[in-house]
Amino acid sequence: MTDNSLSPSPRTPVSLLGTGAMGTALGRAWLAAGHPLTVWNRTPGRTTALAAEGATVARSAAEAVAAGRLVVVCLLDDASVGEALARAELTGRDLVNLTTGTPGEARTRAAWAKERGARFLDGGIMAVPPMIGAPGAFVLYSGDSDLFEEHGDVLAAPAGTEYVGADPGLAALHDVALLSGMYGMFAGITHAFALVRDEDVAPKEFAALLVPWLNAMAAMAHGTAGRLASGDLTTGVVSSLAMQVAGAGTLLRAAEEQGVSSELLTPFLDLMRRRLADGHGDEDTTGLVGLLRARP
Amino acid sequence: MTDNSLSPSPRTPVSLLGTGAMGTALGRAWLAAGHPLTVWNRTPGRTTALAAEGATVARSAAEAVAAGRLVVVCLLDDASVGEALARAELTGRDLVNLTTGTPGEARTRAAWAKERGARFLDGGIMAVPPMIGAPGAFVLYSGDSDLFEEHGDVLAAPAGTEYVGADPGLAALHDVALLSGMYGMFAGITHAFALVRDEDVAPKEFAALLVPWLNAMAAMAHGTAGRLASGDLTTGVVSSLAMQVAGAGTLLRAAEEQGVSSELLTPFLDLMRRRLADGHGDEDTTGLVGLLRARP
Repeated sequence: MTDNSLSPSPRTPVSLLGTGAMGTALGRAWLAAGHPLTVWNRTPGRTTALAAEGATVARSAAEAVAAGRLVVVCLLDDASVGEALARAELTGRDLVNLTTGTPGEARTRAAWAKERGARFLDGGIMAVPPMIGAPGAFVLYSGDSDLFEEHGDVLAAPAGTEYVGADPGLAALHDVALLSGMYGMFAGITHAFALVRDEDVAPKEFAALLVPWLNAMAAMAHGTAGRLASGDLTTGVVSSLAMQVAGAGTLLRAAEEQGVSSELLTPFLDLMRRRLADGHGDEDTTGLVGLLRARP
Repeated sequence: MTDNSLSPSPRTPVSLLGTGAMGTALGRAWLAAGHPLTVWNRTPGRTTALAAEGATVARSAAEAVAAGRLVVVCLLDDASVGEALARAELTGRDLVNLTTGTPGEARTRAAWAKERGARFLDGGIMAVPPMIGAPGAFVLYSGDSDLFEEHGDVLAAPAGTEYVGADPGLAALHDVALLSGMYGMFAGITHAFALVRDEDVAPKEFAALLVPWLNAMAAMAHGTAGRLASGDLTTGVVSSLAMQVAGAGTLLRAAEEQGVSSELLTPFLDLMRRRLADGHGDEDTTGLVGLLRARP
């Protein structure tokens, strides 16, 4: 991950399509770093804030694209990207697509851009708008590595950058995978707070135990990665699936005692039981990854 | 959390009932810290390792209890505790129950111990046996605070200690809540690895992104705690439920593209949609805690 840094002058002009909350935050960071900024938004009112800070407002997406080589697109969804760029001349342009989408959408959009003579880089923003320009925010990039190298300093102005590969679908894939992992953790956090809710437990004190505990246990993912990489799912196992399934009953009985639904917990415990029933009690939970694959 | 530390000599004798993997690890830590140790196990062969390291083997649980005031019990489940101690004289004893169980079981066992004239402390071990005696391991305690104060140094020999309240059920409640939170996170990690599995993504490199990401996002639990404590679920919201539900579609479509079952993800996304449909789009996911409560 590279640090945010200013590019040497003269600053590269940036054309930005899409000035919702995220686009506005990105635009602000480029203006702050001294980049000439041209903006376009389908709903014109939303460009006012950036215009007041020095951005040039284009009357059409095509006009914004014509303003400079580096074109950053941050729209609602992939369909909006196709619509916005339908009449733009993309030949010789460097298109950086920060619109949220699936890996498949990013790959199709990359091929579409190539046909139109543009270089293409897809990005997945791992931050919410208030985090842009502050430490911790980063954007995953995949696609044209020359484009990434050439504009690395511009891209690093709003957030750290992390290039994950030439396949243009990889940024979206990593983005979705990280977010999905986060939602699993949020589900666990929600269940945990529900358990202690009606007891004499201060939420803030409980969080002060929960957060470092989760941070410590997240490191288990390194072991999971090692086992997935080697294919040997029993090496380095800290707590066996057999032991874990035996202990899971206490979690379910406690939830029942506390009057808490186990709906967020049972899908994972069910997978654990399935893997144990298949004779893998000496593994840990790494083998559950394979159970989620519908394709062979 | 207190650090592991040696008690001043003469060391308090410890009677330990249950020498499975965890009991053996605990016993070893007390022997290493110089505490005279008497051990009992239902299956006698399992005391051999500790006996070789200097522990005295009692012929019955009652004999082990008779050997000293501080009695630590680490058995399979709560029923085993009742069985093992059925014929033991508990009057004047300090009973520390490290057997895994529910908050309700701990409360019932505390009342049972009190009737028999013993002080009672319940403990939840937040570690697997290999972690005992090493930094990071800790035990949650609840129940008799005098007992905890008096034997704090002994209890701190195998692992850090964290006293969570006089209600004897609170250690088990915290234990179960932390473990449940962890399993939610493991579910997210499992889904994340499944998504990237068949792609050109090295598991170890992916884990190197996933772990710091989860660590950063776990801190959201502090905000959740603040909102639960104040009852105002819209203050300090970083990403609104409305925005998050809008983005959830991408996660599900991406899973389908990758051929990955969404079974670990959908229960939480369904709760998010329910809360949004109830008109709480300006909250974040904190309000989902209340949806898990079956009791009013």
